[in-house]
Parts: sequence; C-alpha cells; structure tokens
Amino acid sequence: MPSWAIGIDLGGTNIKTAVVDEVEGILFEESQPTDTDSGPDGIVRQLAQVAAEHYQRASETLDAGAFAGIGVGAPGAVDSLRGTLSYPPNLPGWGRYALREQLQNRLEEDHGITAFVLIENDANAAAYGEAVYGGGNAFRDFMMVTLGTGVGGGIILDRKLYRGPNGTAGEIGFMIIDFEGDSVHAGVRGTLESLIGKERIVELACSMIREPGTSPRLMELCLHNPERISPRHLEQAAREGDVTAIHTWQRVGKILGVGLANIVALMDIRKFVIGGGIAAAGELIFEPALMQLHRSILPSMHEGLEIVPARLGNKAGVCGAAALCFASGQSLLQDD
Amino acid sequence: MPSWAIGIDLGGTNIKTAVVDEVEGILFEESQPTDTDSGPDGIVRQLAQVAAEHYQRASETLDAGAFAGIGVGAPGAVDSLRGTLSYPPNLPGWGRYALREQLQNRLEEDHGITAFVLIENDANAAAYGEAVYGGGNAFRDFMMVTLGTGVGGGIILDRKLYRGPNGTAGEIGFMIIDFEGDSVHAGVRGTLESLIGKERIVELACSMIREPGTSPRLMELCLHNPERISPRHLEQAAREGDVTAIHTWQRVGKILGVGLANIVALMDIRKFVIGGGIAAAGELIFEPALMQLHRSILPSMHEGLEIVPARLGNKAGVCGAAALCFASGQSLLQDD
Repeated sequence: MPSWAIGIDLGGTNIKTAVVDEVEGILFEESQPTDTDSGPDGIVRQLAQVAAEHYQRASETLDAGAFAGIGVGAPGAVDSLRGTLSYPPNLPGWGRYALREQLQNRLEEDHGITAFVLIENDANAAAYGEAVYGGGNAFRDFMMVTLGTGVGGGIILDRKLYRGPNGTAGEIGFMIIDFEGDSVHAGVRGTLESLIGKERIVELACSMIREPGTSPRLMELCLHNPERISPRHLEQAAREGDVTAIHTWQRVGKILGVGLANIVALMDIRKFVIGGGIAAAGELIFEPALMQLHRSILPSMHEGLEIVPARLGNKAGVCGAAALCFASGQSLLQDD
Repeated sequence: MPSWAIGIDLGGTNIKTAVVDEVEGILFEESQPTDTDSGPDGIVRQLAQVAAEHYQRASETLDAGAFAGIGVGAPGAVDSLRGTLSYPPNLPGWGRYALREQLQNRLEEDHGITAFVLIENDANAAAYGEAVYGGGNAFRDFMMVTLGTGVGGGIILDRKLYRGPNGTAGEIGFMIIDFEGDSVHAGVRGTLESLIGKERIVELACSMIREPGTSPRLMELCLHNPERISPRHLEQAAREGDVTAIHTWQRVGKILGVGLANIVALMDIRKFVIGGGIAAAGELIFEPALMQLHRSILPSMHEGLEIVPARLGNKAGVCGAAALCFASGQSLLQDD
C-alpha cells in the first residue's frame, strides 16, 4: 500500500498544505494566510492546526498505518538534522527556533497526533518535489533554479537532495559572475540575484526603453509608464515581437547561462529545471541560456546539457516536503 | 596488516611512481621522463615496466597478499568507471583509449602480474592524496584547488572523491567570475584560469610595473627585464616589501576568494586546500583570498571557513592514485 504524507510550505505570506499520496501526488490541498504577527509560537500553533485538520480529513479515506509524516518547507537557514529554523526572512521575531520539536509537541498536546516531522529549506523542498513529481523526474542528477523576486536553487544528486556539510548548499543566487560589476545584492557584487532578480529585470527593461518610440507594445502594456513594467508585460510584449522585451529576456538568459556553466564546470551537473514566476517566460530565457551555456563550457562537456521548465509551479514545495517523508534517506533526518 | 599499492602520476613530461603503504604513505618513489613520442601503446608499455619494477622491489619486503593494486592519475578526461582516457593534453596521438584494460594486459603478458588497476583524473587523484595523507586530512569535505600553469581542482565530500555524474567535476579553472571581462582562456571569457593562470599573473605584474622606479627589488630580480618576471620573483619581491609584487598577489588572492565564494554558495564546502606551484606564495595569496571570501558570502555562512596549503607538493598525485586502491569505494570503479 502506498504511503501518504502531509506537505507544508511555510511562507511569509501563505501557509500551503497538501495531503500527498506517494504514487498519485497531491490528493487535496489548501492555502491560508500566514499569521506572521503571532511570532514563532503562534505560527507553530497554526501549523499544528492545519496539519491536524488535514490529518483528520485524510484519515477518513486513507490508512493511518500508511502515514509517513509531516514535512515542512521553510524559508531561511534550516538545519534539517536538528530540525531548527534560523532567522527566516519575512517572518519577524524568529531567532533560532526548534521548529520540529515545537511542532511535534503542539501536535501531541493540542491534537493528540504523534507524527514523524521533518523540516527542510523551502528551495530544497521544491527541488525535491520537482525531482519526484515534476520536471526533474527523468533526471538522476540536476539542479533546480528558481527565478523570482530572488534567485534560489536546490541540488539533486543520485535522486537525493544534496544539502552540503552544513545544510546550506544550492544558494545559486549568491554565485558571483561579475565580481567587478555595478550590481549589488545583500552587499555582494555581481551575484546572479543582483543581475537577474525580478526587480533587476524590470530595471533592465526600463533602462533599455529610454529611447522614445522604440517599444510601442511594451509601453502600451505598462500604460506608458515604464515604472509599471512587470515581468508579465515583458513576457507578453516579447511574444508579440517587442524589441526591448526580447532583448531583456536574451540578457536574462545569457546571464543565467553563465551561472549554469559554472555548475557544469564545478559539479558536472548537466540538467537544469527552471521554476519560479520569472520562468514563465520559458523559451524566451531558456534558448539564450542554453546558447550561452554551450559557449561557456568545453565542447567535451556539451553532451547531455538540458534546460527544462519546472512543472509543479507553487506546489513544488508541498510535494517535496511530503516526498521527503517517503524518502529512503528519512532516517538521516532523525537525531542519532 | 596494512595494504600497499602502487601510485602512478602520468604527466606530459614525467611519469612519477611510488609504492605507498596504507598507513605510512610513500615507501619509495621514482620519476622518469614520459616517452611521449611512442604514443599510447608505447606509454602503456612504459607504465607496465615501471609498475612491474616497483612491484618486484616492493615484493622483497612486503606481503604480496596485501597488494591492493595500481592506481594511475592521468591528465584530461578520464572515465574511471570504464577505465578510459580521452585526448589527454600534452600527450600527442591519443584519442579515446582503454588505458586500464591495456595496462592490465601488458602487466599480465609482459610481466606475469595480475593486478587491480584504476585510472583517475590527475587533479582528482591529487585531491584524494591530500585528503588521505596531506592538507585535507582533517576535513570531511573540502575542495582542493591547484594553482599552476592552469587552475584545476578536485572535490572531496564525506572523505570520498566527488566525480560528478560524468566524471568531470571539479573544473574550477572554468568557473566564470567576470563574464564581460577581457580575459579569455580556451575561448571562454572571465574564467578563473583566464584571470589567475600562471602566465596571467606574470602579465598582471608586468602591467603594473610600467612606471619606472616603482619596484626596484622586482626589477632587480628579473634583471631589469619585466618579460622575465616569474612567480618566484614575485614571491621573493613581495616578501621583501616590493609594492608591485604585493599588489599582484593581493589581486590573485581576491580573485581566488571570489571563486571560492561560489563554491561555498553552491556546494556549502567551506574548507579549501590550495596546491600547485603558484601556491608557494602561501599567505600572500591566502590572506586576501580569505578576506574576499568573507566579503563575498552571507555572514551566516562564515562559520568554519578555512584556506590551508596543500602538503604533498607534486607527490599528491601518486599518493592519491595509490590511496584510491585502498578506498572502500573501490568496487565502484570496477565494471559491473
């Protein structure tokens, strides 16, 4: 009988929760606003509440004996071995917090549920979700890159999550490809995030649209106010042939390609799954990225290079968090 | 009883060979010019000959039953699973060649020796040598970076060699940190090797020495001909306070630090063992590298950062090639 688990994606805006069947994927899901004002203890109560509700509902049709546990993807520095979350961005009032232990306590004391709980970094959870149910399913080794407000990533090696010695692997947004350039993010010069984070892409388009009359379609979409340009406008305008929009995506793709080349050179990973809101531009980014990738690495490493879209959208996190509960490496996540 | 093995470092100039005791390290060693003119078959005969000589000599005092095998570190693209070597640089006339099989055949037919043979990329072998017997011995996870004519590397994860899905991992010389810069190596712009390969370091110093009278000590060492500046001159001049030489090494360290920061961000590796001829400059490079490393990554990742010198010099390759024969992962290297 297939296992099932509860996957939770704890975000600064919403908490997404899903009951996930090992074989079928998501059975049912829900999203509710994160009660950020209530601090860690309040959020743990909220997490325990949504988990319990999903557990009860799932128990009506699923076998409790096949319940694998509750996986939580959380932003920021997660120590999955110890189950702690430290200084999550967008969640005020958190220091270093024993999220796993506290959630287990709340589940037992408030809801009478004893469950295996694991905590994982949200980008890692999303990468694992794509590995099991999404765009990375065909690949034994790949890197998931998330292009959105920020640039993040997760690495899958031999179908397992690669966390690194301290659990912080995959921070591709901090990869430096222009160490003497002008773009700065979080105090570091020339990182991928400083170059192709969402705001930077919009700035790039704005800087190119200066010449009046060059991009009528893009100007129309942003109501003739370049300040209002959004990635969605850029996508639509590019598909309709707008030159500025096309050049913007080519530049984004080129920069992404340079970053991917560094992953090929260093880790010998040749498959890339690209997700996040910005990745909706699809081939507009992927084609120039693949072209740049070929230009940036030795011909002897060209074999097997692929850039594909993520498939789970914003459900990758809940899927991955649940799937980690099924993983054979599960015991690695428990205390010794 | 400890095992022993034969380690061979096949280079374009010399073949180095050592008999290595699992516990004691190198027992005895030898170096002879590579007979590059004789092509792959001739070199395999030469390899079999030196291996047989070392085997015979070792057998006088060591137990043949404790012989673990022959490890060969070779330049270029090595498929260690299949035992093939493809297009090694500096070895003319090689295509893709079944080095392991051919060497086993020659050993049996010419010398009556049946032995386990493994082939590994030379940079990987050197990294493994430092892991077992050298500067990386204290680290579970580290990256070895070799600074010489080229810039190369090898990655150790959980005390094992990380080869990557296709066996080409660790090519840090191809990491791009200045994608729009002027430096080009092997057709790729802004790679570490294009910025701090040996020749580039000398060029850098030359370009800074233009102003007459600014660097009397360095000028003295190169006999007043900047074209003759060598890394050794730069090291000596810097230790004696020469401004151009100090600035050159600071620049090299800064660039290295940016490269290492990318490894921290991507792989969460925080220990670095630096070898190769250029690394003789030691702290002249390591200090600015560590400073740049701290500036280039999030404070939450500063814990545990270390840059240390390699300790085995040009013996890392033979040590590592032999040590791979002892490794528990040995079976992985044999055909299924």
